[in-house]
Amino acid sequence: MERKQIRSELGWSTRDKIVVRGKDLPGEILGKLNLGDMAFLEIMGRVPNQKESVLFNAMAVTLVEHGITPSALAARLTYLGAPEAMQAAVAAGLCGLGSVFVGSTEGCARMLFEALQNPGSKANLPAVAKSIVEKMKKIPGLGHPVHKPIDPRTVRLFEIARETGFYGKFCELIEAVGKEKNLVVNATGAIGALACELGLDWRAVRGIGVMARAVGLVGHLLEESRQPMAEEVWFRIEEEASAHLKPKK
Amino acid sequence: MERKQIRSELGWSTRDKIVVRGKDLPGEILGKLNLGDMAFLEIMGRVPNQKESVLFNAMAVTLVEHGITPSALAARLTYLGAPEAMQAAVAAGLCGLGSVFVGSTEGCARMLFEALQNPGSKANLPAVAKSIVEKMKKIPGLGHPVHKPIDPRTVRLFEIARETGFYGKFCELIEAVGKEKNLVVNATGAIGALACELGLDWRAVRGIGVMARAVGLVGHLLEESRQPMAEEVWFRIEEEASAHLKPKK
Amino acid sequence: MERKQIRSELGWSTRDKIVVRGKDLPGEILGKLNLGDMAFLEIMGRVPNQKESVLFNAMAVTLVEHGITPSALAARLTYLGAPEAMQAAVAAGLCGLGSVFVGSTEGCARMLFEALQNPGSKANLPAVAKSIVEKMKKIPGLGHPVHKPIDPRTVRLFEIARETGFYGKFCELIEAVGKEKNLVVNATGAIGALACELGLDWRAVRGIGVMARAVGLVGHLLEESRQPMAEEVWFRIEEEASAHLKPKK
Amino acid sequence: MERKQIRSELGWSTRDKIVVRGKDLPGEILGKLNLGDMAFLEIMGRVPNQKESVLFNAMAVTLVEHGITPSALAARLTYLGAPEAMQAAVAAGLCGLGSVFVGSTEGCARMLFEALQNPGSKANLPAVAKSIVEKMKKIPGLGHPVHKPIDPRTVRLFEIARETGFYGKFCELIEAVGKEKNLVVNATGAIGALACELGLDWRAVRGIGVMARAVGLVGHLLEESRQPMAEEVWFRIEEEASAHLKPKK
Repeated sequence: MERKQIRSELGWSTRDKIVVRGKDLPGEILGKLNLGDMAFLEIMGRVPNQKESVLFNAMAVTLVEHGITPSALAARLTYLGAPEAMQAAVAAGLCGLGSVFVGSTEGCARMLFEALQNPGSKANLPAVAKSIVEKMKKIPGLGHPVHKPIDPRTVRLFEIARETGFYGKFCELIEAVGKEKNLVVNATGAIGALACELGLDWRAVRGIGVMARAVGLVGHLLEESRQPMAEEVWFRIEEEASAHLKPKK
Repeated sequence: MERKQIRSELGWSTRDKIVVRGKDLPGEILGKLNLGDMAFLEIMGRVPNQKESVLFNAMAVTLVEHGITPSALAARLTYLGAPEAMQAAVAAGLCGLGSVFVGSTEGCARMLFEALQNPGSKANLPAVAKSIVEKMKKIPGLGHPVHKPIDPRTVRLFEIARETGFYGKFCELIEAVGKEKNLVVNATGAIGALACELGLDWRAVRGIGVMARAVGLVGHLLEESRQPMAEEVWFRIEEEASAHLKPKK
Repeated sequence: MERKQIRSELGWSTRDKIVVRGKDLPGEILGKLNLGDMAFLEIMGRVPNQKESVLFNAMAVTLVEHGITPSALAARLTYLGAPEAMQAAVAAGLCGLGSVFVGSTEGCARMLFEALQNPGSKANLPAVAKSIVEKMKKIPGLGHPVHKPIDPRTVRLFEIARETGFYGKFCELIEAVGKEKNLVVNATGAIGALACELGLDWRAVRGIGVMARAVGLVGHLLEESRQPMAEEVWFRIEEEASAHLKPKK
Repeated sequence: MERKQIRSELGWSTRDKIVVRGKDLPGEILGKLNLGDMAFLEIMGRVPNQKESVLFNAMAVTLVEHGITPSALAARLTYLGAPEAMQAAVAAGLCGLGSVFVGSTEGCARMLFEALQNPGSKANLPAVAKSIVEKMKKIPGLGHPVHKPIDPRTVRLFEIARETGFYGKFCELIEAVGKEKNLVVNATGAIGALACELGLDWRAVRGIGVMARAVGLVGHLLEESRQPMAEEVWFRIEEEASAHLKPKK
């Protein structure tokens, strides 16, 4: 069979050198880039400037921690059975970041990106917003069961976007769509729009939430190791779930 | 059955507030903490000062990217089958961060932490180092197949530790142990020692590598979506692995 | 907030009893049901009869092993880093059973189920087949890069279906669709159709492949522990992927 | 760098053939082997005889379903966030099958295998049992929080072992160790011993539980799709866990 070339541009190392995205890791990265900047470098292939750094870090930080979520619970329950493999507990927690929760960042970024692809469309945002609402039954990035009528994270993220000069057409569009649907632009909607403003590939946008949640899950597992809840959750739910089946004592 | 209380200190939210570790997420965190600082807050329960921030971010950044690793390959091969679930591809990549690779940060931190637990032991580092070498056959954090006789990441991390005032007994000890074994202190050894210097719980140390690698894996998956290698890897390995079984044509 | 009841019908246990789906595990299941029958019991809520047992086991067995697949490689690469956590290596291998590979069983079952939902539609299979081909660009369960013009697994599965009396309208329909598109009905297509014949919920169909592959992955990991390939795969791919970046010696 | 050969003995396929472990999949396996037999073929490299088939299937079936376990809860919570990727929800559930729960099968098999490695040791089981109890603080396969003083699964598995002629020294040894410690031989202990009797590699023993649980988790996810509990679990636990932090209304 014909062979294709296998190539990666991300990094390489030799005996005394480690290079990531063309930069010397010890000499040009360590001590200079923070973890969010490094994520930007991975995704964009270049170091962010100061304003990009502030905005991108804020986007990632937004998604780190939101208390006891299904993802955090899954990680904690996994850790209960395999405390020697905390990486697998983080992995278990990440597996649930799909279409329902964090995945909506990707859906929103893609929707906005595609809606404003041809330059003319930027001229007439209300019409574009209307057409989105007409076409899509469920719009990613809108609505929240708890944070309504406003999501305080969106307010702050758009404020940071204005301060750093990144509040633009994509932000306006998602706000217009939200108004049209009478739904709050939630944090994943704001992050989807800001990812477009920064020029991120929509295919990488879900990844921002995934890496952020990995950070948060480490926090949950450390807490679980000190102040556990997983076993108690298990006992309670097991008892309740099977009570109707068990013989009465 | 008696019920235990279920409590978490990490965060909470109401309609208009989101609080993480006692701090208002929109007001006190977004735009102020970078992603590494946020990880520090999750693990330590407090915001790092400027020096802690520099050191901790450098530790995490060190482990983000190291080119085509087994973990990156596993993630890319997973993405090939389920591109709609990139969170699961990141999870697959994380599952391999066990005893052989990233897990050694934890082993090293634990070893150093336990060795210097009672204050007297700090007085006589060479003796402590000798006793470690005598007791343990394989010492986590030492040796590297490629980066020898020095690991350039360790050099730089300890330099940053000196600049920020965190080069201390734990760093000295791992260096003494390395000298005793005539093995390089690798990046995971340096990070294990620095985690002790920062006062991190050894149970959270593997987590630094896990979150860092989650960042790097997102980079790999984005590259895989644009410049794929997984299918070619599969075809080649499949062909070679089964060649001796297949009927000769 | 209003509380909903939490209930599960799958199983319960007390000090001296373990009951699964209403059957006493030690007394009525162990030694009587094989692993495929047990899977049938889990999914259908009842023990299969002899013919169902043969067909369902054949469907599951079909998907256990297909040599070095991306999923097997991901599991092996994960095991290389965390041999102490083989459950996580299996998990990593399963994460890739998405839309591209095994997930097509689900897609096919759903497509067939929905197409033949109203009884009238069963009368005119060629018309239904045409309408499927017109509506769907890519039809799940059709085509194979290697097994063409026929997939020998499909031939055999449909033979078993005929022997057990389960070759029916769903099988006919997928064959009609395959003929219409001039594409082979692959094993996932056959399994999708047979799942419909057995009355399985399409939501459980991907699960047949997932459980089957879990069996196969255990085989791969045992082989990897004795006759490893993951490290060699890593070394080769890493070298080739970064060769264009590294300084010429 | 020198290249090593990459070889796998598990399977291969060409245009019109699919062969697993030397057997033609359509012709010699489908319709003849059940799912447990196929697992035996994967692990042992040969088809089980009738007695091995009964015993091995019973061992695997034992571990399929045990109601609402931490593993089942983790899978359900993952499914809540990513219902489009049920493979990842199964994977999340498997990640917790570590040292605390299912992993003890492996620990037990290894312990028994190593204790009876040299033929002389089989002569004096009570002495071997004593020496195990002296050496190990926590003995894998003994004790159960609910099933005591006997685990009904163990009773039945050893009964099947007697019927099939596989009750031997390894079973006797684990029973002697249990008596010595005054603890019940639980199902994982019985399975560990029986794995030794069948000549399974201890490295594959955890895999029996992993594959079995994959089967059970599919059952849980199907139930979750029809009769969900994950969201309710999440709401309740989140509310309770953060109640002490939230401002009083």
